[in-house]
Formats: sequence, structure tokens, C-alpha cells
Amino acid sequence: MTAEETVPGSVRPGGRTARVRAAVLRVAGDLLAEHGFARLDLAEVAARAEVGKTTVYRRWRTPTGLITDLLLDMAEQSLPRADTGSLRGDLEANARLVAKTLADPRQGRLFRAVIAAATCDDAAAEALHRFYDVRLTEWSPCITDAVTRGEAPPGTDPRVVLTAVSGPLYYRLLASGDPIDDRAVRVAAEAAASAAAAGIFVRTAT
Amino acid sequence: MTAEETVPGSVRPGGRTARVRAAVLRVAGDLLAEHGFARLDLAEVAARAEVGKTTVYRRWRTPTGLITDLLLDMAEQSLPRADTGSLRGDLEANARLVAKTLADPRQGRLFRAVIAAATCDDAAAEALHRFYDVRLTEWSPCITDAVTRGEAPPGTDPRVVLTAVSGPLYYRLLASGDPIDDRAVRVAAEAAASAAAAGIFVRTAT
Repeated sequence: MTAEETVPGSVRPGGRTARVRAAVLRVAGDLLAEHGFARLDLAEVAARAEVGKTTVYRRWRTPTGLITDLLLDMAEQSLPRADTGSLRGDLEANARLVAKTLADPRQGRLFRAVIAAATCDDAAAEALHRFYDVRLTEWSPCITDAVTRGEAPPGTDPRVVLTAVSGPLYYRLLASGDPIDDRAVRVAAEAAASAAAAGIFVRTAT
Repeated sequence: MTAEETVPGSVRPGGRTARVRAAVLRVAGDLLAEHGFARLDLAEVAARAEVGKTTVYRRWRTPTGLITDLLLDMAEQSLPRADTGSLRGDLEANARLVAKTLADPRQGRLFRAVIAAATCDDAAAEALHRFYDVRLTEWSPCITDAVTRGEAPPGTDPRVVLTAVSGPLYYRLLASGDPIDDRAVRVAAEAAASAAAAGIFVRTAT
């Protein structure tokens, strides 16, 4: 055991603790992508990450603990918003990013696994909602900028616009099985931009 | 054992076989809603449905077999399309039906469970896609009728319109956790109807 582990506050960013976390989360992501949530096992994660089992159990405690931290890490690494100068361009960049993630063999399976975990575990669901909250917040300025440029009316709700873009792509992945192809990407972005311009996503006074 | 079970072709609709299936699928749905996919157990289903274990294992074989038959039964029972006389009215009826299903305590949990099962089981995924195929096909005339009435241009793709309605509601359920409230329902329907009128969902020649 090193000094870094025993003395609180001595952990440098990029130090051993950070390396252990990176290795454990990479393996956890691999296992989730390979086998789904039901088979995520802390001892297997420790073995494959070449990290002591005690460290893994002490730090992450349960499969849900691992998933929660993995989603936190994914949120930290999520890409910044696009800034193409038009609402349609920004929404198409958003749709393309979502589609690329969901179509990627490892990432797509990983997302399905964490979404599946969230359906039957409240803590995983909370972590998942926080992850999407970070993504939706990161991309919201695309819509407020569009309002400033006059491409959508004041009061347009950024989160609802972004939900209209992502929703159809997730529905294809998780429900209908229809392909997430280039046309699906363009149509999702264009439909949301068109409805935004028409004022459909304006918050109503309640 | 009754004659109905031993003589092939003697099974009346509504007879013992149909009653056994109804009881087993009701219990399977209850257990999925209660505990999710990971804990679906054929012996427990048999016990709670008061049906012989052998019958359940012989007929459904695996948890996936049960889920597949449950989805078939759900597709058979899915409600017919609305016919309100306007595209926006029909799409709002569709959104309201989806929201009601997903917000229902038993049905909402059941859908999450079968979607979770589909993320890690190809046969369950196929059954899920067939279920949505039935629903999307059932509601497609809402869009072709709207085209006939001149509310959307010829070539508008019904399946893509319906995906635009359902997608944001499923995204709220499975990803962001944002509420599936009355406003979410109205906005999903209005956005899809508006984009359909603007010609966004017209099939492009490829």
C-alpha cells in the first residue's frame, strides 16, 4: 500500500488513485458492453483491471456503485456543444453525436446496459438522469443562441428541443429496432428545428 | 389431464389452454413489473399461476420464451388507432396512449422490464421489435389519411412521424427521467404534426 492510499488529501490528480479508477472503470465498461448489467461482478472487474479486490469492494461496494461512478466519468468526458452558427446545424451535430455513440459497438452496448440497469435500480437511475442532465445542460446554449439570432421565439425550452432530437434515436435503439442511419439523424434534427421555429417548444405559463 | 390437452386440435379458443396461457402471462407480467427481468423464474410463475411446472417449462422453456409470448399477447391486445379527423388530434391521442401506458405503475414497469430484457437477449429484442412493428403499423393510417386530407405532403413516412411522437416520451422514461406530463404529450404530438406539415418526414429518393 502506498502513501497516497493511506494519507487522505495526498492524492495527486493523475496519481495512483486516478490510475486505479481509470483502469477499473474501463474494465467495468468493457464487461457491461460484453455481458450487460446482470453479470457485472466486482471480483471479475478487480481481476481484469489488475487491482486488489479489497480496493474495488471498499471504493465501489456494489455493481450499482460502479455504474454510478462510470456514468459520472462519462458525464465528465462528454463532448462540448457544437457551435455551427445555425440551430439546424447545431441540432444535426447533436443528433450525429448521439447516433455515433449509440451505433458504436462498445458504447452502444454500454448505454443499453446502463439504461437496463436503471430500469431496476433506483441509484443507477439517479446516476443516469444526472448524466443526461449534464449533457442536456451542456447543449442548451445551442437553443438560447438560436433564440438570440431570431431562429426560434423567446421562451423556447432548450431541454425539450434536445429531447425531441434524441428521443427518436433512442426509440429506434431501445424500442422499434429501426436503423439509426443518416436519414434518421437528419430527420430528427430537422423536425426539431422546424418545430422550434414554429414556436412549439415555447414554455407555456402555468 | 383432460382430453383437451391430449388430443391435438381439440383445444377450443377460451378453453383450458387459453386459460392457462392467460394465467401464466398475467403472472409473468406481474413478476416482471415487480422485480424486473433478472428475477423472472419459470417455477415461480407456475406456482403463482397455479399451473403445473412441467406445463410451463414445456410450453415456454425459458424466461425469454415467456417474454416473447407476453409481447405477442400485448401486441394482440393493443388498442386500435384513433380517428379524430385531424393529424394533430390523432397524434395527440397516440401520445396520450403511450404516456398513459408508460405512466401506469404496472404497465410502465413492465415495459421497462421487457426493454431491459431486450438489451441483453436477441430473442427478446426481436419480440420487442415485432411488438412495436404491430403498434406502428396499426397507427400508420393516421398519417396516410392526413396526406389524403392534405395535412401533410405525399410521401410522408408514417413510421417516422410516429417515431417522432413516441421517441421523446420514451427518452423521458428511459434516459433523462424528465416527467411524462400533459405538456410533454401535447408538445410531442404538436412538434410531429408541425414537422409533418412542413414536409420533414417525406421519404427521399435514394
